[in-house]
Amino acid sequence: MTQLVILPHDEFTLRLDNIRKALKSNNIDAAVISDNANIYYLTGRVFAGYIYIPAAGPEIFFVRRPVGLEGDGVVYIRKPEQMAESIGLNAPETLALELDITSWTDIQRLSAVFPESKIANASPVMRAVRSVKSPYEIERLRLSGQKQERVYRRVPHLFRPGMTDLELQVEIERVSRLEGCLGQFRISGDSMELYMGNILAGENADNPTPYDFAMGGEGLDPSLPVGCNGSVIRPGDSVMVDVNGNYTGYMTDMTRTFAMTQVDALAAKAHSCSIEICKAIAAAGTPGVHAKELYGLAEKMAREAGLEAYFMGHHQKAGFVGHGVGIEINEQPVLAPRSKDILAEGNVIAVEPKFVIPGVGAVGIENTYVVTASGMECITSAPEQIISFS
Amino acid sequence: MTQLVILPHDEFTLRLDNIRKALKSNNIDAAVISDNANIYYLTGRVFAGYIYIPAAGPEIFFVRRPVGLEGDGVVYIRKPEQMAESIGLNAPETLALELDITSWTDIQRLSAVFPESKIANASPVMRAVRSVKSPYEIERLRLSGQKQERVYRRVPHLFRPGMTDLELQVEIERVSRLEGCLGQFRISGDSMELYMGNILAGENADNPTPYDFAMGGEGLDPSLPVGCNGSVIRPGDSVMVDVNGNYTGYMTDMTRTFAMTQVDALAAKAHSCSIEICKAIAAAGTPGVHAKELYGLAEKMAREAGLEAYFMGHHQKAGFVGHGVGIEINEQPVLAPRSKDILAEGNVIAVEPKFVIPGVGAVGIENTYVVTASGMECITSAPEQIISFS
Repeated sequence: MTQLVILPHDEFTLRLDNIRKALKSNNIDAAVISDNANIYYLTGRVFAGYIYIPAAGPEIFFVRRPVGLEGDGVVYIRKPEQMAESIGLNAPETLALELDITSWTDIQRLSAVFPESKIANASPVMRAVRSVKSPYEIERLRLSGQKQERVYRRVPHLFRPGMTDLELQVEIERVSRLEGCLGQFRISGDSMELYMGNILAGENADNPTPYDFAMGGEGLDPSLPVGCNGSVIRPGDSVMVDVNGNYTGYMTDMTRTFAMTQVDALAAKAHSCSIEICKAIAAAGTPGVHAKELYGLAEKMAREAGLEAYFMGHHQKAGFVGHGVGIEINEQPVLAPRSKDILAEGNVIAVEPKFVIPGVGAVGIENTYVVTASGMECITSAPEQIISFS
Repeated sequence: MTQLVILPHDEFTLRLDNIRKALKSNNIDAAVISDNANIYYLTGRVFAGYIYIPAAGPEIFFVRRPVGLEGDGVVYIRKPEQMAESIGLNAPETLALELDITSWTDIQRLSAVFPESKIANASPVMRAVRSVKSPYEIERLRLSGQKQERVYRRVPHLFRPGMTDLELQVEIERVSRLEGCLGQFRISGDSMELYMGNILAGENADNPTPYDFAMGGEGLDPSLPVGCNGSVIRPGDSVMVDVNGNYTGYMTDMTRTFAMTQVDALAAKAHSCSIEICKAIAAAGTPGVHAKELYGLAEKMAREAGLEAYFMGHHQKAGFVGHGVGIEINEQPVLAPRSKDILAEGNVIAVEPKFVIPGVGAVGIENTYVVTASGMECITSAPEQIISFS
């Protein structure tokens, strides 16, 4: 038998307490959590089942799989209807379910287990609590950042003249995996898809995608239209490397730009502008700042540099310049024009001011930052200039 | 500009006609489709948006991203509410949405666009239509099977004594990617997670997972508890290789077992039993057969061989012996004890009678088959015996 909760006790208590506070302040009496990312957040492991969290009272872990877990509040069930037996007469007046993530069919089934409860939405509660990382979580992220940095330092040595973008990506994937990258790229919701990362070489960067990523790419097949497309990397091309940083269950997000030869002046200027925008956002990003102001700052700097037409894409533009990151790649806060998010100490934010320069490709960098009282601290600290392959 | 629909015209018409027939026979007046897998099925590409399919009348492609698509019925929108303008007074009496896949929140929003429509479930309709593959789809699957087979034939040459299961997996991943594997492992629903495939060496095969896969494994981290766990491959271990077969947008699913030295007699017997079960199911699996009978056949053969305790897992057992496969890994029909599915010509089914032998590991094979009038035709035809690494 194995303990179900594998988080350190204080960490587990802290996270649960934060959720209970958030439930109370939203007048919610209990939540049922079943999303893998949220279950991992609450326990330190993924299991199939449900966590029942009353705002006041002990939590219950309803487990379907795997066999062999134990601990306070662990109850094995085969189907969600069996939760009613354990909760019994204490049915909550208002019950929060993960309405933004769970399918309509599953919500109907779960609601029917609690026929007298009024259903509320647990998704905003979980997003808000998870957006503020604990020191323990920040350590996990720092570790991912360090490992990811080691991989990026090896990228120039993986390149061989004549390589396609795919061939380079495959070697980066290999090195990442051997460094301990778990591969899994967790995205909340099921509309975004990406395998391991995005290597964009040359003009492929201007191919638009259906996905809500900062950059595009045609992809290898119309069934997964994003990223590298098998084109040979040529002198003068920029090669943007934005590859999976999930080494610990927590992801950092880092982008660097490489090239065989010097890129043209416009691309070089845009790359420098990206570095400057990152610095400016890192300095301005203190607790209490509105996320949309940081987007505005980036957009203004790009405009003043005369780079507006290339900022966050050329044929197709992304609508944000940064996003929270942690267990999933699309967490809060979001640095976008209409974002309502306000920065808080402990937010972890990937900032990715990127440009697509016609005839050259994508340039710019991305770093992951921790919001501290005095500004944003970078935890992905590889060299930022355009890095030469040769 | 690029044509939105990239399927051959006849293929596109066939698929849409089949969906319209299914809608009519379920008394549904229209469907709105937005799941990536279903959008890919209907058009040959993934886009962000919605396909509006009336049971009678022309379909409309509402596109959010990417820019630049054109063709009959293509309408660009920024948000789902804009669909109402195009559909106007023709609001369907009964409207099917993908209730089993789409989040509760998104269904509420979509339903509000059609306030006078009664909402029905498009998910079973799409699952049923997609479970019968057209000759065109079967060709895509055959091609995936051929490429996957080439990768499996290289596996013995990738092994080096002293390797960990992870190191072997990384080399298999690399070869798969260079052979054209797209990497993306599409699973309907968001409860199952796996990166690229599952390499199970030795006793790690008996570690249970939360996921609904046939086999388990501890994984590298509790955030993704499935598959290889970094243990060194030893003489006497079995090494089960079950790696991503998505080369064309359509996946084949194939498993083979490898070993450094001969495995013990019990494991060898179980492996032979797996091959025999595959043969028996392939012979018995004709149109009209109940999927649960094929599960029963497998279970009976395992029991009669005295291998019941190891069949489909040891500490934890999977509840099925086969599953439909195509754009996603968990399609219909499902070969399980309580399955209500009935085989039809054109079903494509992965059959995976596997055993976990204590002290040895996982043994058995998996093949992908096409259901034909005369039985099931194997499209993953690599050698089936336990393959020696050396």
